Amino acid sequence: MDNDKPIEKCGVVAAAVSGDAAPYIYYSLWALQHRGQEIAGIATFDNGINCIKKRGLVHEVFGPEEISSLKGTCGIGHVLYSIKLSKYENFQPVVVNTSVGDIAVGHNGIIINSKILREELKAKGHAFVTDTEEEAMIYILADELSSTGNVVRALKNMTKKLIGSYSLVFIINGRIFALRDEYGIKPLCIGKLDNGYVVASESVALDAIDAKLVRDVSPGEIVELKSTSIESTMIASPKNTAHCVFEWVYFARPDSLMDGRYGYEVRIEIGKRLAREYPVKADLVCPIPDSGRTHALGYSMESKIPYSEGLMKNRYIGRTFIMPHQEMRDLSIKMKLNTVRPLIEGKRIVLVDDSIVRGSTIKKIVQFIRNANAKEIHIRIGFPPIVAPCYFGIDMTNRGELIASAKTVDEIAKEIAADSLEFLTVKELVESIGKPYDDLCLGCLTKEYPIEISGERVRFQKSLDLYK
Amino acid sequence: MDNDKPIEKCGVVAAAVSGDAAPYIYYSLWALQHRGQEIAGIATFDNGINCIKKRGLVHEVFGPEEISSLKGTCGIGHVLYSIKLSKYENFQPVVVNTSVGDIAVGHNGIIINSKILREELKAKGHAFVTDTEEEAMIYILADELSSTGNVVRALKNMTKKLIGSYSLVFIINGRIFALRDEYGIKPLCIGKLDNGYVVASESVALDAIDAKLVRDVSPGEIVELKSTSIESTMIASPKNTAHCVFEWVYFARPDSLMDGRYGYEVRIEIGKRLAREYPVKADLVCPIPDSGRTHALGYSMESKIPYSEGLMKNRYIGRTFIMPHQEMRDLSIKMKLNTVRPLIEGKRIVLVDDSIVRGSTIKKIVQFIRNANAKEIHIRIGFPPIVAPCYFGIDMTNRGELIASAKTVDEIAKEIAADSLEFLTVKELVESIGKPYDDLCLGCLTKEYPIEISGERVRFQKSLDLYK
Amino acid sequence: MDNDKPIEKCGVVAAAVSGDAAPYIYYSLWALQHRGQEIAGIATFDNGINCIKKRGLVHEVFGPEEISSLKGTCGIGHVLYSIKLSKYENFQPVVVNTSVGDIAVGHNGIIINSKILREELKAKGHAFVTDTEEEAMIYILADELSSTGNVVRALKNMTKKLIGSYSLVFIINGRIFALRDEYGIKPLCIGKLDNGYVVASESVALDAIDAKLVRDVSPGEIVELKSTSIESTMIASPKNTAHCVFEWVYFARPDSLMDGRYGYEVRIEIGKRLAREYPVKADLVCPIPDSGRTHALGYSMESKIPYSEGLMKNRYIGRTFIMPHQEMRDLSIKMKLNTVRPLIEGKRIVLVDDSIVRGSTIKKIVQFIRNANAKEIHIRIGFPPIVAPCYFGIDMTNRGELIASAKTVDEIAKEIAADSLEFLTVKELVESIGKPYDDLCLGCLTKEYPIEISGERVRFQKSLDLYK
Amino acid sequence: MDNDKPIEKCGVVAAAVSGDAAPYIYYSLWALQHRGQEIAGIATFDNGINCIKKRGLVHEVFGPEEISSLKGTCGIGHVLYSIKLSKYENFQPVVVNTSVGDIAVGHNGIIINSKILREELKAKGHAFVTDTEEEAMIYILADELSSTGNVVRALKNMTKKLIGSYSLVFIINGRIFALRDEYGIKPLCIGKLDNGYVVASESVALDAIDAKLVRDVSPGEIVELKSTSIESTMIASPKNTAHCVFEWVYFARPDSLMDGRYGYEVRIEIGKRLAREYPVKADLVCPIPDSGRTHALGYSMESKIPYSEGLMKNRYIGRTFIMPHQEMRDLSIKMKLNTVRPLIEGKRIVLVDDSIVRGSTIKKIVQFIRNANAKEIHIRIGFPPIVAPCYFGIDMTNRGELIASAKTVDEIAKEIAADSLEFLTVKELVESIGKPYDDLCLGCLTKEYPIEISGERVRFQKSLDLYK
Repeated sequence: MDNDKPIEKCGVVAAAVSGDAAPYIYYSLWALQHRGQEIAGIATFDNGINCIKKRGLVHEVFGPEEISSLKGTCGIGHVLYSIKLSKYENFQPVVVNTSVGDIAVGHNGIIINSKILREELKAKGHAFVTDTEEEAMIYILADELSSTGNVVRALKNMTKKLIGSYSLVFIINGRIFALRDEYGIKPLCIGKLDNGYVVASESVALDAIDAKLVRDVSPGEIVELKSTSIESTMIASPKNTAHCVFEWVYFARPDSLMDGRYGYEVRIEIGKRLAREYPVKADLVCPIPDSGRTHALGYSMESKIPYSEGLMKNRYIGRTFIMPHQEMRDLSIKMKLNTVRPLIEGKRIVLVDDSIVRGSTIKKIVQFIRNANAKEIHIRIGFPPIVAPCYFGIDMTNRGELIASAKTVDEIAKEIAADSLEFLTVKELVESIGKPYDDLCLGCLTKEYPIEISGERVRFQKSLDLYK
Repeated sequence: MDNDKPIEKCGVVAAAVSGDAAPYIYYSLWALQHRGQEIAGIATFDNGINCIKKRGLVHEVFGPEEISSLKGTCGIGHVLYSIKLSKYENFQPVVVNTSVGDIAVGHNGIIINSKILREELKAKGHAFVTDTEEEAMIYILADELSSTGNVVRALKNMTKKLIGSYSLVFIINGRIFALRDEYGIKPLCIGKLDNGYVVASESVALDAIDAKLVRDVSPGEIVELKSTSIESTMIASPKNTAHCVFEWVYFARPDSLMDGRYGYEVRIEIGKRLAREYPVKADLVCPIPDSGRTHALGYSMESKIPYSEGLMKNRYIGRTFIMPHQEMRDLSIKMKLNTVRPLIEGKRIVLVDDSIVRGSTIKKIVQFIRNANAKEIHIRIGFPPIVAPCYFGIDMTNRGELIASAKTVDEIAKEIAADSLEFLTVKELVESIGKPYDDLCLGCLTKEYPIEISGERVRFQKSLDLYK
Repeated sequence: MDNDKPIEKCGVVAAAVSGDAAPYIYYSLWALQHRGQEIAGIATFDNGINCIKKRGLVHEVFGPEEISSLKGTCGIGHVLYSIKLSKYENFQPVVVNTSVGDIAVGHNGIIINSKILREELKAKGHAFVTDTEEEAMIYILADELSSTGNVVRALKNMTKKLIGSYSLVFIINGRIFALRDEYGIKPLCIGKLDNGYVVASESVALDAIDAKLVRDVSPGEIVELKSTSIESTMIASPKNTAHCVFEWVYFARPDSLMDGRYGYEVRIEIGKRLAREYPVKADLVCPIPDSGRTHALGYSMESKIPYSEGLMKNRYIGRTFIMPHQEMRDLSIKMKLNTVRPLIEGKRIVLVDDSIVRGSTIKKIVQFIRNANAKEIHIRIGFPPIVAPCYFGIDMTNRGELIASAKTVDEIAKEIAADSLEFLTVKELVESIGKPYDDLCLGCLTKEYPIEISGERVRFQKSLDLYK
Repeated sequence: MDNDKPIEKCGVVAAAVSGDAAPYIYYSLWALQHRGQEIAGIATFDNGINCIKKRGLVHEVFGPEEISSLKGTCGIGHVLYSIKLSKYENFQPVVVNTSVGDIAVGHNGIIINSKILREELKAKGHAFVTDTEEEAMIYILADELSSTGNVVRALKNMTKKLIGSYSLVFIINGRIFALRDEYGIKPLCIGKLDNGYVVASESVALDAIDAKLVRDVSPGEIVELKSTSIESTMIASPKNTAHCVFEWVYFARPDSLMDGRYGYEVRIEIGKRLAREYPVKADLVCPIPDSGRTHALGYSMESKIPYSEGLMKNRYIGRTFIMPHQEMRDLSIKMKLNTVRPLIEGKRIVLVDDSIVRGSTIKKIVQFIRNANAKEIHIRIGFPPIVAPCYFGIDMTNRGELIASAKTVDEIAKEIAADSLEFLTVKELVESIGKPYDDLCLGCLTKEYPIEISGERVRFQKSLDLYK
């Protein structure tokens, strides 16, 4: 149930080509639409920065007229989903005219110390037209650029002040730069076109424009894109990365290859693990569409219990309104999902989903399947209990909203009225991803974060008992 | 690849309840959105007919203001997809003020003799404000009602003049009627609410408002809906029905139960049949999303070849525009679909889809999977070759566009560059549906139609050799 | 204060030229915008009727794309102001496909017996998609055309059934006709272009496209427009016309020449009459803008009292909303009008307007000028007291709303707090217009109508005492 | 012909009241709509600044929802007309979050040294999100406020850096300030409400909300508005003011009282002067509507030649498009203006307008009146020849576009084919305004500017021969 997670999402693109860059950015953004459905923006450079950004899906914001008005051989793009409706000033790319030239930035991630940075910058005399952390970044960058005169050094110095997650794309005086935080929390990859280079949040954006995936941007790497070459500078060499595990499991499209692993592979592997570790006698494996589909397939492969799509999703659910009729209120879940009754009636069902955040939706779904006369409902969740907030890209600030932060697994099972409920463990998740524990960000699961956050443990102080 | 079929689609709803009818119609229409994404309309009765109809998805056309302005305890709704952009006058429900009162109609189906009927009506002095066959129906109905004084008899007499397919919903002077042509070509079912009755094209529309499915409207039945009862009149008793086979296979949602069979069941059975009759050694079964998914699951169940979603669909593709850049033209298919390369690379793939109409899309998909280094591509189509037009609901007037009308299966396989290609036979399709051959409309497959159409054979003259 | 009158207004245009007709219709409609600001529509003929009609001003409804899509060498146009918001079906031109071909109509006027006509037509089996009297006209016309086979005869027969005012433009099977009721209640004139002919409600529409005014369409005349000629048929020869006197005084633009008299001339003459008949010692003559301007100029010319624009109108007042703040409610008149204080302070003012309908606005204006310290306020109204409804084009159905129907002039003066108040008499009005009393419609002033209306006197029974 | 002048216009409002400020600002802005029809914006303060600004007329941008969402007891408003289409970032009020709090500004005027100021600020490390001079003002102000800690002193220091014209309204940390440049180039006045104080560009904005005009803001004065009082600080005491003469003559509404003189009075006086100094034998005085109306009235009063509105303006002309038909191109002037032929035919006409900028429109009008068979056309212009650019509020940068900068009066008369042409002299203009020559800005007429501008003479170096 994709849209119910209280999540702040973004996707970024950058391109430098020999012809017009805007069409490439446009198609790439479209492939990243799942990372942000509210606001879309493209900025290109052509003797100055042209920028169009608006509320709407990519194909609603940009028509032929907009794309042809965005002249220039290089540029950046951004899609944004925000749980709070945002005003125009905060749309991305953020564009600023500074003493060292015109700068545009697109950002995927969250800067934890943005409030402090803004205060520091204001104390230095800077003023803010937007409410964004991106405007702060540009001011830091401009100050550094002004004193060092070197873009790469300025970007490096800027990153030293940023605490948080950031995959960034920049236009700086007509040059295109992309960089990724030293932990590689958010994904970013490089692609090669016949006539240039692109960078994007996910490899699907490269596929969409027939670009070949060259490699991921390395954690702590700055890349300058030119139409004929890319230039790389390492600005940090951390011992460990901290890739967000939720990217492979939920955020990114399954057909995206990130840091060497496809979402699809990881989800299938998780499904198989769930089947091995938490077997159950059942008649069919059924995903919660669309997010649980691949996990459920893995579960079915391993368990040999037939896979079936017993829940159908209405493809056309958009933003809806609350009917002023009491009897209508409870129908909202029914509009989104429907049961295929003969598949469910009298059956023992393994219901698989990618994760549980607040638990309110799955509770309704269980009730709903129960009404279709399922005999037993066994829930298998391809992610450990989310017990703590994510500070690096997901807006789950209110710990109290996380069902697993207050309740045990048994209590949750009872609350949602499941016959059985099992979560993947952190260890199983890590093994399914196939990367070292120390190279992943598991903060929302372990309460240990790769970066020091006031009031939270940092990763290297981890208590091993969590790693079970 | 749902949107590529040159199809004219519709969905209808009617409701009579003790409170306001509009909210029920609204939610039901939403569940039928897949039957028509271009235009949505609702008409209710409250001392006269109120009607709102507009271009857009159901949730775009109707907000709280619109729904509350549609007063009245009964009404009808309609969703429409048209391959030709239509003008306002032709939107449904069509509403007319006649000598015998106000009449509104919503129609799913196609009246073959509409041109003749319009000419006859014009000869009788009637004039047309719309280009629709629905306006003609209302004029016939009003004339009959005027002479008989009885609504049911008038409806019956009207149907005698209509040649074609029609599931209809009416408001006639504040009363709600629904009827289905004597062959039951298009689906229509009855549901019971706590406070009333509804009729809808598919049972999913009942599920959405928590109505219980009572039964299908019978072919040749007129039903009057009241909030406390339904009244039925049989106006025809044909020996055989002629249910459109494409409803179970493609049109309707898999979770809809139509004339006793779920789309899901039929598609799974078709997939199994394909596996039994057209086996192949392969590494994975892969659907063309979303239409081929259930068929592919059936194929996998029967063949034990693992099911995998090697093609991913971009959920956010809307109406797009043609880029004025030559190099961009060929990317349109890439925006819609993407391969999960590691699933495909070096594999022998069984690619399953529901049907082939023009063949242009599948050709691109094969090429596309080939580029991801599939070893072999074996295509299995869950529907026989479409060799003739459908006159009852699908706009495939130009027989030349149907790839199977001009080419043999071998020629098609060569044309689309598949390693093997197999279609379901008519016999296998009929058996998968589980209904007698003589109760199905198979015109587009057999060139024999349930109704006499100039230049085509009628069913009872069928040459048995087609039934193989 | 133009917008405060409870008036239903329309303007019509027709054109037949050697090139595309739409641009001519477009510019002409623009010049008639004052006759209808809510809805604009154009229909052209090119192997069938194309029609675009929408809510909005002419330049909002039609852009270059719309105008070029309206192909064809002939067509009609319509602007409409309605005091009740209308639904799309009722927008004009009304277009119907009949047994005798495609017909489009645009109408200025009101058919008094439209309800009866609709009932008769329904009894004959006709049904209505719109709520309009224009659809009824087309049905009558089609029936007549069907039996006579002759368009002009059919139009003539149609007019025999119509009771009311009508200046009409038609497309009938690609031919353009215009006609005017036998009383010539509403204006209609003919113009010649280099490459064709046009007909329009007012001569300003001809000026706008550089067409030469040929003459008015005669009362009771049908004109067929071709690009090279016009063909005229007289279908009635009434002894007397009944031109609406309000056209010269308020409806039409002063620069329009109607039935031989400019609005400007008539208004100046009225102003002079007021000065001669109702002199007063004053310091300045001040119009209520914009409607009283020309009358006030005439008053000043004759009285030699200086003309001054002591009230200024905000040009940008559009549709506004009611502020939910009590203290704001009374400001609406201030937003529209403002005083030039030094012109008014301590002065004796002759305030001139074209007419008084409900009296509510003038009351506020007097108060308002009083607040600017005017010494005396003498009101002179260039129209007699409106004591009865107009059935032919103005929606003043509720006689109770007409201040002069219930109150004497003295009572009105007291009510609005004027130091003196004088209205033009009917006799003076008639003489100012310069046409015979018997050739004018003065129903709203004399309660005698040119056409028999149930409950009202007809003109030839006039009691001469009204003519004073 | 108002809309043809290549002019950049603005209007500003500020309010501090005991209730909600937004409704007052809204109605006041509406009364200032003539100062800017493209973009409207309101910012209010309520624990932070809320701002809504959009393209459109005031009543299009703000509905009841917008006004009620703008909470707060104080705020500012702005209307803008720009000859170049502007992007959202540049809409006013400009709002910035600075180290010393939230600041919003609305500006009427032009800062000549804005480019230099922006460069200086950038050199100091400031960066710009907008292209505006208003963002620069805020940065200067914030820097000053940061060092002085006193708002009034900071505003004073800011003004020392600004070269140009500026009537400004500010929200600074919830306090409302208004100020006017030391020359008083642009108007600004103070009004008293029952429950607060307002400031606005023109007194008509006070009239619209029933506020009493207290006085003008003095040149060089800063006023703080509170709901119960105003506090004034003089920050400059120049010997001379430099009021823009074009305000009384064209910009402001005639019913506005600015610096002691109504536009109406000045225009009447100008008309009288023209009549005295440049008499001509003629049959009627005719204004070019709407701008020349009051001037023409003055001419008629003095000359005793009858005033007549021989040219009528279409009230509904909005932004139009160019028809792709050659024969239609020349009709644009006809759509806007029309002649009342009988008034003009055979007459000797004195045609009066407020000013001539490029001369292209008046040329068409003369031709146009000539076509209506005027016998003689004598043009009298209520403003001297515009020979130089205005740097303080009118975008007439290209001196070559000014017809009077290249041609003598005789040459212009010949060019526009007038029988005679006379302009007011500078001396007559000054006397008509009734203020000392040294207190007016006459730069566009004398090439002497109140402020030193590179390449231009400053006023005190004036050559007296211009003063004739």
